[in-house]
Amino acid sequence: MGNYLQPITGFGVGKVIDSRNPEFMEGDLVWGITGWEEYSLLKSSEGLFKIHHTDIPLSYYTGILGMPGLTAYGGFYEVCAPKKGEYVFVSAASGAVGQLVGQFAKLMGCYVVGSAGTRDKVELLKNKFGFDDAFNYKEEPDLNAALKRYFPEGIDIYFENVGGKMLDAVLLNMRVRGRIAVCGMISQYNCDQPEGVYNLMSIVYKRVRIEGFAVADYYPQYSKFLDFILPYIREGKIKYVEDIVEGLENGPTALIGLFNGRNVGKQVVLVASQ
Amino acid sequence: MGNYLQPITGFGVGKVIDSRNPEFMEGDLVWGITGWEEYSLLKSSEGLFKIHHTDIPLSYYTGILGMPGLTAYGGFYEVCAPKKGEYVFVSAASGAVGQLVGQFAKLMGCYVVGSAGTRDKVELLKNKFGFDDAFNYKEEPDLNAALKRYFPEGIDIYFENVGGKMLDAVLLNMRVRGRIAVCGMISQYNCDQPEGVYNLMSIVYKRVRIEGFAVADYYPQYSKFLDFILPYIREGKIKYVEDIVEGLENGPTALIGLFNGRNVGKQVVLVASQ
Repeated sequence: MGNYLQPITGFGVGKVIDSRNPEFMEGDLVWGITGWEEYSLLKSSEGLFKIHHTDIPLSYYTGILGMPGLTAYGGFYEVCAPKKGEYVFVSAASGAVGQLVGQFAKLMGCYVVGSAGTRDKVELLKNKFGFDDAFNYKEEPDLNAALKRYFPEGIDIYFENVGGKMLDAVLLNMRVRGRIAVCGMISQYNCDQPEGVYNLMSIVYKRVRIEGFAVADYYPQYSKFLDFILPYIREGKIKYVEDIVEGLENGPTALIGLFNGRNVGKQVVLVASQ
Repeated sequence: MGNYLQPITGFGVGKVIDSRNPEFMEGDLVWGITGWEEYSLLKSSEGLFKIHHTDIPLSYYTGILGMPGLTAYGGFYEVCAPKKGEYVFVSAASGAVGQLVGQFAKLMGCYVVGSAGTRDKVELLKNKFGFDDAFNYKEEPDLNAALKRYFPEGIDIYFENVGGKMLDAVLLNMRVRGRIAVCGMISQYNCDQPEGVYNLMSIVYKRVRIEGFAVADYYPQYSKFLDFILPYIREGKIKYVEDIVEGLENGPTALIGLFNGRNVGKQVVLVASQ
């Protein structure tokens, strides 16, 4: 099915070595969609952003200052429409997007609980990212019971990264006018047949809004987002954890690791240092 | 479990015969939640509306001028946020709410298709309510294929009344930034176990918004709604079909009939004439 001459693509950081576009000059640092390769030929500058702030590690532009950061920002502030004091649940909460959503929720004055798949990640959520609480979903035989324990008052906002059984359990615990921002459903990507979700009646009973979104919707807000987040990073008020593997040849293993939850924090593949 | 002294309640029309509330006088006609009984004692006037326009059949205040009408109005204009030229699908389309949503969609300049459960209802949708097309879902072994036939370009707006398999098929046919207003899921109300819905990944891929709502959210807009719809009714530009059974004793059979799709149009039980 695939075109074998086309490289896998992903969000990357690079340095311009030649350009026919007057907006990008040799030596400019950029982030955007690049190939999994040492040198990429980009035929369009759509979704390509120049990097102006280099006091921050360049790898951050694949994460907190790039696509995942803008995803967390748009998804939380726009799609979730959060209010102070609301109850927020984040799944895959130690991932590149989840860790930021949890911290944004705390900045907003919400109560936030995250789920993750190892005890180390749960500790990270509670001790590094400042979540009010966190749990390991693999240690919870009954997700509905777990959510009732962590959210006795119910959930106002669910930031959805996993889908399937977790979504089904969350639906049983939503509060009236709750919002579910659907960023991804990683548990479903590699299923032969997706899992059934049974509790959608809750959308009617609780007037729930479920909404998918894409980061590209928020590209026009990128510079506003930078103004918002750079001071927090520089002052250490927002934490960010990366999981860096060195060498392009380790990229495929790193990618597969995402689906097993092997990575802790944003998975980055280091192809070359500056 | 139930309190056997409490009557079943529903939206009804009545005449005030005594009142301790200065806003409602003896002789006033009202609609709102009443008991399934000849005389109702209402302890609160919340959600009780006075009837001022009596050139229209009073039974209309249980439907097009009452809860279902306001439901269709708020659900379509607010939740669906329709635009001219969009592709609209309505399930249970000959019901009290569906028949209005389809007509609102036509007034807006949308392309609208409805589904219903008998050939007579399908004819009604096409010939009386002016839907662009309609189909009998019971004659469609593959709902996904049926929707692809009626919406080769996909669906922008789905007005959801049924849930289950229909929702699953619709999800496969949504367009980017499509909206699903969830008014009800009648196919699921009497299931021991609700049906699974498998195609929710489409929420991510197509950035779909699914939103539940309740008519009470739109009570403050009731007089604006009347100003909007009364001229259309008086000029015959909006059609409305009721299925009236006479006698309170026939209420239970009429109610059960809703779940089998026996009624054609808004089911009304006539308890007494004025």
